[in-house]
Amino acid sequence: MPNARNSELPWLAECPLRETADEVAAYFDRLWPLLRSITGEGVRRTHDILGELVPLERIEIPSGTRCFDWTVPKEWICRDAYVIGPDGRRLLDVRQNTLHLVNYSIAFRGVLSRAELDEHLYSLPEMPEAIPYVTSYYAPRWGFCLPHAMRTSLPEGRYEVVIDAEHVDGSLTLSQAVLPGKEPAEVLISTYTCHPSLANNELSGPLLAAFLYRRLAAIERRRLTYRFVWLPETIGSLAYLARYGEYFRRRLVAGYVASCVGDRGPLTYKRSRRGDGAADRAALYALRRLAGDSLRVLEFEPSGSDERQYCSPGFDLPVGVIARSIYGAYREYHTSLDNRNFISFDSLVESVDAYLAVLGALDANATYRRTAPCGEPQLGRHGLYPSLGGPTVRDESLVALRWLLNLADGEHDLLAIAERSRVPLSALADATRRCLAAGLIERVALIE
Amino acid sequence: MPNARNSELPWLAECPLRETADEVAAYFDRLWPLLRSITGEGVRRTHDILGELVPLERIEIPSGTRCFDWTVPKEWICRDAYVIGPDGRRLLDVRQNTLHLVNYSIAFRGVLSRAELDEHLYSLPEMPEAIPYVTSYYAPRWGFCLPHAMRTSLPEGRYEVVIDAEHVDGSLTLSQAVLPGKEPAEVLISTYTCHPSLANNELSGPLLAAFLYRRLAAIERRRLTYRFVWLPETIGSLAYLARYGEYFRRRLVAGYVASCVGDRGPLTYKRSRRGDGAADRAALYALRRLAGDSLRVLEFEPSGSDERQYCSPGFDLPVGVIARSIYGAYREYHTSLDNRNFISFDSLVESVDAYLAVLGALDANATYRRTAPCGEPQLGRHGLYPSLGGPTVRDESLVALRWLLNLADGEHDLLAIAERSRVPLSALADATRRCLAAGLIERVALIE
Amino acid sequence: MPNARNSELPWLAECPLRETADEVAAYFDRLWPLLRSITGEGVRRTHDILGELVPLERIEIPSGTRCFDWTVPKEWICRDAYVIGPDGRRLLDVRQNTLHLVNYSIAFRGVLSRAELDEHLYSLPEMPEAIPYVTSYYAPRWGFCLPHAMRTSLPEGRYEVVIDAEHVDGSLTLSQAVLPGKEPAEVLISTYTCHPSLANNELSGPLLAAFLYRRLAAIERRRLTYRFVWLPETIGSLAYLARYGEYFRRRLVAGYVASCVGDRGPLTYKRSRRGDGAADRAALYALRRLAGDSLRVLEFEPSGSDERQYCSPGFDLPVGVIARSIYGAYREYHTSLDNRNFISFDSLVESVDAYLAVLGALDANATYRRTAPCGEPQLGRHGLYPSLGGPTVRDESLVALRWLLNLADGEHDLLAIAERSRVPLSALADATRRCLAAGLIERVALIE
Repeated sequence: MPNARNSELPWLAECPLRETADEVAAYFDRLWPLLRSITGEGVRRTHDILGELVPLERIEIPSGTRCFDWTVPKEWICRDAYVIGPDGRRLLDVRQNTLHLVNYSIAFRGVLSRAELDEHLYSLPEMPEAIPYVTSYYAPRWGFCLPHAMRTSLPEGRYEVVIDAEHVDGSLTLSQAVLPGKEPAEVLISTYTCHPSLANNELSGPLLAAFLYRRLAAIERRRLTYRFVWLPETIGSLAYLARYGEYFRRRLVAGYVASCVGDRGPLTYKRSRRGDGAADRAALYALRRLAGDSLRVLEFEPSGSDERQYCSPGFDLPVGVIARSIYGAYREYHTSLDNRNFISFDSLVESVDAYLAVLGALDANATYRRTAPCGEPQLGRHGLYPSLGGPTVRDESLVALRWLLNLADGEHDLLAIAERSRVPLSALADATRRCLAAGLIERVALIE
Repeated sequence: MPNARNSELPWLAECPLRETADEVAAYFDRLWPLLRSITGEGVRRTHDILGELVPLERIEIPSGTRCFDWTVPKEWICRDAYVIGPDGRRLLDVRQNTLHLVNYSIAFRGVLSRAELDEHLYSLPEMPEAIPYVTSYYAPRWGFCLPHAMRTSLPEGRYEVVIDAEHVDGSLTLSQAVLPGKEPAEVLISTYTCHPSLANNELSGPLLAAFLYRRLAAIERRRLTYRFVWLPETIGSLAYLARYGEYFRRRLVAGYVASCVGDRGPLTYKRSRRGDGAADRAALYALRRLAGDSLRVLEFEPSGSDERQYCSPGFDLPVGVIARSIYGAYREYHTSLDNRNFISFDSLVESVDAYLAVLGALDANATYRRTAPCGEPQLGRHGLYPSLGGPTVRDESLVALRWLLNLADGEHDLLAIAERSRVPLSALADATRRCLAAGLIERVALIE
Repeated sequence: MPNARNSELPWLAECPLRETADEVAAYFDRLWPLLRSITGEGVRRTHDILGELVPLERIEIPSGTRCFDWTVPKEWICRDAYVIGPDGRRLLDVRQNTLHLVNYSIAFRGVLSRAELDEHLYSLPEMPEAIPYVTSYYAPRWGFCLPHAMRTSLPEGRYEVVIDAEHVDGSLTLSQAVLPGKEPAEVLISTYTCHPSLANNELSGPLLAAFLYRRLAAIERRRLTYRFVWLPETIGSLAYLARYGEYFRRRLVAGYVASCVGDRGPLTYKRSRRGDGAADRAALYALRRLAGDSLRVLEFEPSGSDERQYCSPGFDLPVGVIARSIYGAYREYHTSLDNRNFISFDSLVESVDAYLAVLGALDANATYRRTAPCGEPQLGRHGLYPSLGGPTVRDESLVALRWLLNLADGEHDLLAIAERSRVPLSALADATRRCLAAGLIERVALIE
C-alpha cells in the first residue's frame, strides 16, 4: 500500500516502527484457540496476551451493574462441552472448535434421541461446510453449531450431551491504554474481544489496535491524546460509555471502531452519524490518498458494531469505522470460514498503516489564527521569502505558506485548508511549524 | 394509479372509503350549468350542492370589506344575458353556455350595428372553435365571448343586446369545513368556486376537496387537524387570510391548492415559496411513490392561483399546488374546451388518492425524541428483538426500529428519517407505534 | 463585445460616453516610457498624466511609515543606468528600455570583467528574446536584465557599469478619486502603477480605471459611491488599508482589482476570498451575459495582486479580480514581450464595458421590502395591471413585477431575485422603480 502519495501524510513516513506480518501471525496463533465470550476467562487470557504489547489498564465491571437500558450479565464459565454419538465417538467438541457451542450456553447433561438433539442444532443449509457462529446472551438456551453436511448425516441413535458450564456473579472485563498528548482533545480506537475463533471479524481488530498503539508510542510529536479500548461488543461499549460518555462528549474529537481489518479486500470507511466532522474528513483525507478509487465509503447506518452505541443520539460522538470487508459484506462473516486462511497478515499490517495515516492527519488538523491578521506578513523579514522578485520565482512551500496565512482565521482547520487549496496536508503542517516559530500564527484551542 | 409501492404510504390502503367515478360525475353534472362568479347566487348554489357531501360552515363577507390592499367587490346578480341577431334568432345566450357573457359584466340593453357589437366581442383567432373565458372584475365593462369562427360569420345588421344584471351591496361567499385532530397543527386544502362552466380548471378542484374530506373523515387515526376551504380565487383567499392569516402563521404545517386535478395528464407538484419544508417533502415523498418518473415538479413562481396569496412575503405559508395539467400548461385552459370531455372522472378519483397519500405522509411525519437517548435500548427486554443472535438474523422491521431509535433526537422528522434511511415511511410509522408503546420515544410538539 | 443580451445589463446601454481605442492608445504611449517603481518620480508623472482624465486626490505617505507588518520604503531616484561594453558602445541603457535595470537597484559605478558583470545579469534561457522584469525592493542589490541571446553573445573584456541612483527619505505616492452616490455603501476599483514599461500587466489597469471613472461620472443615476485608487502593488494597498481598512470593513460592498485587462484573451473572474458574496454574484451575473461560455472563473487563491491584502483574514473584504489573461497565465507576463503589440486597445475598451456592466449590476442590486407584505397588491389599483382578465394576457413586465413583489422580503437582493426568477436584472430594476413610485416597496439599508 505505501505509495507515491504517502509523503503527503504526516506520520506514515515519520514512524520508525513497523511490525512484520510474522510477528502479528505469532500473536494471532496464540489468541485463536481461546474460548472468548462477552465475559469470562477467555477474555481475560486474551487481554493478558495483548498486554505483552500494550500496557493495559484492566477494568472489571461487576455483574448486575446497570448501563443505561442494559445490565452487565453474569460471567460465563465453560469447562467443557461435547456430544457423544451413537458410536461412542466424541463430536461437536468445543475444544476442537470453539464455534461448536452456542456461545453463553447454559449447562446441560443428558441423553437425547437424534430428533431431540436436532432441536438444539444450528447449521447453514446454504453454506453446508461452515459452522455458524451463534450466541444466546440474553435468553437461557443451550445448543451446538455444526456444518449442515454433518448435521444431515448424523445417524439415528442416542446422543449423550455434556455442557459443563455455569453463569455466576463475576464481572465483565475491558482494558484500556492511553497515550497522552499535549492537548486534552482525545482520539478513541475501540475494538472488541468477545468473539471466539473468528479471524477477520474479531482477532484482526484487537491485534491492529495493539500494534497501532506500539507504532504511535514511537512517534515523538503527538499533539492529541490517544485512547485505546478492548471490550466485549455492545455491552462493553455501553459499560465504557456509562463510565466515560460524559467525558467523551467534552473531549473526543474522533474515534474509530477497528473490526474486519485483516482480509484482502480494499479499505472501507463508514462515516460517523454526523457524517462530515473532522473524524470523517481526516479518515477520508488519508484513506483516499492510500487507497485511491478502491476506497469504499459507506454512509452511517445504525446497524454494525459499537459505533451504534457511540453514535446513539444521546452521545452522537464522532466515531466512524475503518475496515476492509466490513461485517455482513462478506460471505464468510460469522462462520468458521472466517479463519486464518481468510485473512492476510500483510493486509493487517497495511491496515495498521492506514490507521496510522488517519491519526497523523487528525493530529496535524489543528486550527490556527494569525497573530496580526491584517495584510500579508512581509515574509522576507521573517526569513520566509526569496528577496529577489522575478518571473521565475516558483516555490511550492511558498504556496503552502500563503494559503495557511490567508486561511488561518480561527475557522478553517488544516484539513479544510488542504481541501480548499489542494496543498498536501504535510506541506501545510510544515508551513504551520515555520509560522508558529516566526510568531505569525497561534493555535486555537477548540476543546478546553 | 394504486400500485406496488402504495403499501409504503400510510393512509392509501388504510382508508375504508373510495368514491366511484360515477358518483363524482353525478355531482359534476349538477354543478356544471351554474353561472358562478366571484360573488353571487351561482356560488351559493354551488356550495349548497357540495354541502350534501361535507358539513360546510358558510362565511359571508360584506361588500366593501377591506382585505389588505383589496376590497370585497359588490355582489353580481345576472338574471339574463343574450343577443338577438338580425334574423331574430337568440345567440350568445348565457343560459346556453355561461362562458358567453364576460363574467361580472355590467347591465346593458340596446341595439347595435355589427361593428358596434364587435367592440364588445372576445374570441380566439388561434382556437376558432373555442369560447374564451373572460372576466372584468375591477373595471366596469360588458361583453360577450364566442368562437372566432362564429364571430367572423356574423352578418351585418342590427343586434339587440340584453344584459339583465346589476352589482349590489351584498357579500362574498366562502365555505369551510374542519376535521379536528389530536394536535393543533393544521393542514389546509384550498380550492376555488368562482369559475362558471369550466371542468378541469375549476370543478375538478371543489369536487376533489369534497370527496377527500369524506375519505379523511373515515380515517380513525388522525394526528393533525384538516381544514378545507372553498372560495373565489384571489379575493377569496385574501379575505380568508385577513381572517385566518395570523392563525395560519402559528398553526399551518402544510397547505395545498387543489386545481386542475381532473384531466388525464400526469401528476404535478408546484413547490411552496419556501421550497423544501415539510409540506413540500411530504408531497414529493408520496407523489413520487405514486407517479414515479412521470411526476412533474415545478419550482415556486408567483403566478398561478391562490398560492400567490398564501405565499406572499408577509405570510410565506407552506402552501404548494398538487395538480395534473396545471393552469396555463394545457391548450384548453380558460376556454370552453376545458369541459366534461377534457377530464376523466377516473383521473379525478386517482387525484383524490394522491391527495390522501400526501396527507397520510404529513400525518405520519411527526418528530420524536428518545426518552433515554444514551446507547441503544436493549430491544429484547422490550419485546422488540429476537433472543438468538446468528448470521441469519435479518429483519426489515428491525432495520426500521434501529433507524428510528438512532435518529429520534428531536431534530429529524419521520420524513427526514425515511429519506436518510431509505426505509419506507409506513415501516417507520409502525416502528414509531411500537416504540411509543414501549415508552422508548416521545413525540416532540413543534407547534404549541 | 456588446451583444444581444447587453440590454439586460442596466448601465451598458445607458451610459452616454465611450472612449475610443485611439484615445486610450494616446495615453498609453505617453505613459509607456516612464521609469515607474514602487516609489519615486516615475509614479508621480504617471499620476499627473492620469490626472488629466480624473480629478485625482494625491496621498503621499512618508518613508518609514509602518503599515501592519511592513514599512514604507525609501524613495528611489534613478537618474541614469547603463553599461559601456568593451567596444565602447552603450548597452543595457535604462533610457532605451526601463526593464534593463533591476528595479529599485542601488547605485553602482565600476569597471568589471565579463564574468564579474555576469553575476549581476538576469535573463531567461527559455525565452531568449525577452528581457525579464526583475525587482529587488527589500534587499539592497543592483543588476541588469537582458535577452538571453544577447547575454550569451557578450564578448570578454572590460565593462563599465553606471547606475546613478539613490534611495532617500521621501514618500510613497498613491492617488484616489471618489464618485459619491446616494448611499454610504462603496465600491472600490484598485489598480497599480509601479511597473515600468509593461503593457498588459500594468498600464492596461490604470488606463481602464481612468476611463471607467469618466464613463461612470457620466451616468446620472448612481446609488453607490465609487472609489478608485492607483497605487504601487502590495506596499501601496497595505498603506491604503492602514488608512481605510476599518472604513472599508463597514462600507465596502464590492471591490475589483483591475489588472491584465488589455490583451485579446477572454474575460476572467477571480472570486473574492468569500467566494459568493454580492461582489462575486454581480461580477458573474454581468460577465456571464457579456462573455458567455468563454468566461473563465477562478476560485480565490492567496497569490496574485492586491486582492491578497484586501482579502487577508483580518479584512476579508469582498474584492475580486476582473481581468483577461490574468497574471502568470500568459507566457509574456513580466517580460519585455508584454508590450504594445501584445495588447489591443479595442480589447481594453471592451474591458471598460465589462467593468461598467458589473458596476451597473452592483448598483441595481439593492434589497427591498414590501411596505404591506400580506397578499399581493391589487396591481390594477396602482396602474400596474390590465383590467381585463383572459387567456391571452401575457406580459413580461408583469412577471418581473410579481417576482419582485413576492421576494421583496428584506432578504433577497435583486440579483438573488434575478437568479431565482430568471427575469433579467434590468427588468427587475424597472419593476423596482415602478413599485417604489407606487409606494409598494422600500429599500432596506444594509449599511448604515
